[in-house]
Amino acid sequence: MREKIIAASVELFEQNGFSETSIQDIVDALGVTKGTFYYYFKSKEELLMDIHLRYIEGLLSEQARIMNDEQRSVREKLYAIVYMLIHNVDRQGRQARIFFREMKHLSEEHLQKVKEKRDLFRYQLQALIEEGMKSGELRRDLSPSIVTLTVLGAANWSYHWFRPDGELTDAEVAEQMVTILLDGMSGLRVS
Amino acid sequence: MREKIIAASVELFEQNGFSETSIQDIVDALGVTKGTFYYYFKSKEELLMDIHLRYIEGLLSEQARIMNDEQRSVREKLYAIVYMLIHNVDRQGRQARIFFREMKHLSEEHLQKVKEKRDLFRYQLQALIEEGMKSGELRRDLSPSIVTLTVLGAANWSYHWFRPDGELTDAEVAEQMVTILLDGMSGLRVS
Repeated sequence: MREKIIAASVELFEQNGFSETSIQDIVDALGVTKGTFYYYFKSKEELLMDIHLRYIEGLLSEQARIMNDEQRSVREKLYAIVYMLIHNVDRQGRQARIFFREMKHLSEEHLQKVKEKRDLFRYQLQALIEEGMKSGELRRDLSPSIVTLTVLGAANWSYHWFRPDGELTDAEVAEQMVTILLDGMSGLRVS
Repeated sequence: MREKIIAASVELFEQNGFSETSIQDIVDALGVTKGTFYYYFKSKEELLMDIHLRYIEGLLSEQARIMNDEQRSVREKLYAIVYMLIHNVDRQGRQARIFFREMKHLSEEHLQKVKEKRDLFRYQLQALIEEGMKSGELRRDLSPSIVTLTVLGAANWSYHWFRPDGELTDAEVAEQMVTILLDGMSGLRVS
């Protein structure tokens, strides 16, 4: 039931917005009573934090798995992380959109919790980039934090436009994106 | 007064969200009556569309100015467009955040209007990239639409993180971002 409440809420929040969705709307969609809702969640805000935390924790554990794989080069790890972000938008587009759009509805304390995890994701990506700079796999004349934010921006933005039924698959989009980010768009070197 | 209403609303919408801000809140912040509001805007929704349209129209006219400058290479035009997007976030961060966050509150008809202009911005950027591919300034083995969305994503994402009082200026961030996008992050070629 907990899962069902989350799924129904995600759908309603995306369609109508967090503020416009009442607990009554959520329980009506499921054909249960408010008591059922309150058995699992203290409030609508707690449910929102739960959605946020699950989303970011899923990303963090997948990122850790990728980063700890000693067999992969920095380039391969970057590809895997970008692929994960785009693939995740594909699989979990709704959570992603709610994550970015409804953040302001979290209490200060809960927002802090979510922000810490988001920051952790970014720091870990930056650590990977710094590792690549040290080893010479990545050039050293760029700011590691700007590189990190450029990669994150390119990949995260896909939640605005990526369609699983589009011309290219998530793997193809990730491949092209990582090619751009690592090798550049300039024709001077490849022509 | 029209400008003042817009400025006060942008501030309130950002702080408290569109749904949570009433027309009463807006006129209270300005010390005027509701009649004054309705003299300039039919509804809160119309005001929101006005904010959206001004934001995107400002970007479009600046983009046209950059693209029509025959003196600039594709690389220089790309730099100018990325700089504009980051600089705009700096100058107009609030409008940018409201633009992305509160879009769902527009009526279908108004949303269509705004979407057409956003699409136009993207198509024009893509036309520039295709021009660069044709002339050989950009490599040809990438999908023009993915290149376009990667550039837009990297630059637009800055509204989540760019701080005018941060370590790097908007011009420096744009310079590094365009270097990454055009020349790549890979160390193999520059070492």
